[in-house]
Amino acid sequence: MNNEKKHVVDVCFSPVLYPYYATDNSIVVVIDILRATSVICAAFEHGAEKILPVASKEEAIKYRAQGYLIAGERDGVKIEGFDLGNSPFSYIEENVKGKKIAFTTTNGTLAINAAKDAYMVVIGSFLNFNALTNWLIEQNRDVILLSAGYKAKLNFEDAIFAGAIAEKLIETEEYDTSSDSVFVAMNLYKMAINDMFTFLRKSSHRIRLKNLDLKKDVKYCFSPNQTNVIPILYNDHIVDIEQVSGLKSASGGKV
Amino acid sequence: MNNEKKHVVDVCFSPVLYPYYATDNSIVVVIDILRATSVICAAFEHGAEKILPVASKEEAIKYRAQGYLIAGERDGVKIEGFDLGNSPFSYIEENVKGKKIAFTTTNGTLAINAAKDAYMVVIGSFLNFNALTNWLIEQNRDVILLSAGYKAKLNFEDAIFAGAIAEKLIETEEYDTSSDSVFVAMNLYKMAINDMFTFLRKSSHRIRLKNLDLKKDVKYCFSPNQTNVIPILYNDHIVDIEQVSGLKSASGGKV
Repeated sequence: MNNEKKHVVDVCFSPVLYPYYATDNSIVVVIDILRATSVICAAFEHGAEKILPVASKEEAIKYRAQGYLIAGERDGVKIEGFDLGNSPFSYIEENVKGKKIAFTTTNGTLAINAAKDAYMVVIGSFLNFNALTNWLIEQNRDVILLSAGYKAKLNFEDAIFAGAIAEKLIETEEYDTSSDSVFVAMNLYKMAINDMFTFLRKSSHRIRLKNLDLKKDVKYCFSPNQTNVIPILYNDHIVDIEQVSGLKSASGGKV
Repeated sequence: MNNEKKHVVDVCFSPVLYPYYATDNSIVVVIDILRATSVICAAFEHGAEKILPVASKEEAIKYRAQGYLIAGERDGVKIEGFDLGNSPFSYIEENVKGKKIAFTTTNGTLAINAAKDAYMVVIGSFLNFNALTNWLIEQNRDVILLSAGYKAKLNFEDAIFAGAIAEKLIETEEYDTSSDSVFVAMNLYKMAINDMFTFLRKSSHRIRLKNLDLKKDVKYCFSPNQTNVIPILYNDHIVDIEQVSGLKSASGGKV
């Protein structure tokens, strides 16, 4: 193994810190397990055409006139008057197939926006874990795992998922890291893997979700490999990578 | 136990994230184990009068004319022409007793500066672990453990120390937390405690320090309870809390 040929994997625990991790040539995986990136994967699994991440509910509302569904939450609750909230179970075929969606969330869309100038931005969740990991490995490129966190702060579920991806990449012996964040994330994943729910019971975020009676959502968001979609940011929208000619196997060229 | 009477402990892994953790009434513990906050504790143990944290080497140089020693490092190396670097072994009595020191470092002074408007800012390291922890508990007040990290990123040694302090506070049952960062830090501490050096061998920061041949410094910086000093930020300088009349036992009043 020639060390110089290895790629680098890093983990960034907050969109606010992303500028300190950004490089010109990395693929950024945006992670907001509960629930934005899980919802995005569910939407494409069920045939959504494209998703426009927007920062504010006012911005989302403007897109209604252009034929978009408007979707999003604030503090875990569906925004009043919106077509869809942040439960993955709303993003079923009869609601989203062939639809354009303007989407705003507390943390997830902020993270997508923070990374928007990266070489590539893709969407990660347990739902597309294997498909995403295999695709990343095929790209032969540095990877930054960007946790959306919770209001700029680290959260367990995003960190655990980042650790799970980092472990898979490092196992290939094609990726290296000298980042303490990666080791922290991988250690969290190791602690969590055998009893994710006991571990997450300690999570502030999950306590909040439990209060909102979202057990079913949480369980689904931790179910691995429900879909093979790889949502990717392309011309300001998120699309299924299959919809972008040549992109799925592309290993070069700014998209 | 009345939950409403509990104080809150939180951990912030980067000075860049501090604004998201700041509250009006918290004591902030600044942590830069390798090596700024260890050096500051060593300096007061050996009789330094006061330390002025400054952002740049140019600013430090200006204080020489006012009778200050000038001290600091960049990327782990003593700044050329400075009186003192960042090795705790330089901060012995014959060098620092009764001296004023202008001090600039890559990470530690940035963290002190980030928190400077907090209710109180104190300096933590393994060297003053017990004294600091006992003093914190006496204050009956919220605590933010602020890791200096490494160039805005999380690092192991600061996170482990934050976890050690958080565990002691939470053991008293007077402190509560709903922060995932606190649980991450405490879990890291639990993983590290029995074999700190094996654990830290994985640390990017320690690899860097090893390259600089600083094994002796690292070992010292992980030696608990070498001093009872509690350095505190007071009128822009760091002083030994014993030097500030009434401050050690103060539980109110902005300092």
